[in-house]
Amino acid sequence: MTITTENSQLNGVDTTTLFATRDAVKETHEIAKFQFRAHNEWVSGTHNRSTVSGFYGAMQEMQHAQESVVVSDHPAVLVGEDHGPTPVEYLLHAIAACLTGGIANIAAARGVRLTKVSSDVEGDIDLLGILGLSGGSVRNGYEQIKVTFHVEGDADDETLRGIVEQARRRSAVYDVFTNPTPVVIDVVTG
Amino acid sequence: MTITTENSQLNGVDTTTLFATRDAVKETHEIAKFQFRAHNEWVSGTHNRSTVSGFYGAMQEMQHAQESVVVSDHPAVLVGEDHGPTPVEYLLHAIAACLTGGIANIAAARGVRLTKVSSDVEGDIDLLGILGLSGGSVRNGYEQIKVTFHVEGDADDETLRGIVEQARRRSAVYDVFTNPTPVVIDVVTG
Repeated sequence: MTITTENSQLNGVDTTTLFATRDAVKETHEIAKFQFRAHNEWVSGTHNRSTVSGFYGAMQEMQHAQESVVVSDHPAVLVGEDHGPTPVEYLLHAIAACLTGGIANIAAARGVRLTKVSSDVEGDIDLLGILGLSGGSVRNGYEQIKVTFHVEGDADDETLRGIVEQARRRSAVYDVFTNPTPVVIDVVTG
Repeated sequence: MTITTENSQLNGVDTTTLFATRDAVKETHEIAKFQFRAHNEWVSGTHNRSTVSGFYGAMQEMQHAQESVVVSDHPAVLVGEDHGPTPVEYLLHAIAACLTGGIANIAAARGVRLTKVSSDVEGDIDLLGILGLSGGSVRNGYEQIKVTFHVEGDADDETLRGIVEQARRRSAVYDVFTNPTPVVIDVVTG
């Protein structure tokens, strides 16, 4: 595939930069080591908020263009004050967002112009698990997450499905959900 | 433990309602079946946004007090326009938020007054995985997530650590990360 300056924007993706970034990483693997971070402060009850601003990547400390504040709470039916989405609803956003970004990038890399990508995500959870009422027979997390994509663009059905499938294969969030990820918890008291 | 109306608020948690909810679920398991949802729309490139509003739970369709809009993008170094946190940063918020809500609830249930809960979350990821440059030797998702809690309250170190440990045991997000969760992806084109 030949990328020229004229066609380097497709789906809002700068494919010239995309391929240049991939080539740079291929040459220097160290560039690919990232650490993302969030700082969370408890407010009251199940209400808490995270700030996301700095991260490490491309061999240096970096900052997002702006700091983001992300709020969670439980709805009233789960004994919260509903100041924001539950933690598990953020997981549904994360899987949709990760796959959608991948779809846009992969479509651009394959020269496919997209006109629409939307998705509905459903996560089924039986709270007997987290309430400790199942005797261990019900897991704490989602029993299943289902993502339904609607994708339109200048390509046939098979090509569009192939782009979604490749996004799945390369999705960081899909991997975290479907394969075990080590989580270490340290506690400082006082 | 005897809960009276006078002491039913601890850590911003209405423990009377908390125990009543648990008792109601114990009696009628069907109440515990929830489905959370998000709807995501692609904007451009890796920029997309989710709306979170309705969910199913307690045997009925429900609505959050307000609809939330959650935005994701990649930073410039990852060929995005940095309109918001990356999808994987939302995972870090989700684990902190889930554990923190649990800590507040469990502390309240155990009669422990908390004065501070904060956490720093770090997620290490090697992008050789999602860039397809590792020959399959590097995973797409986080290699490790580390959560460091700072917890203060009217209890000794061992009691506070026990509360964090119980929050881990009952965390939905911790379960999704550390154990495989089925993710089904459907595609509609046209």
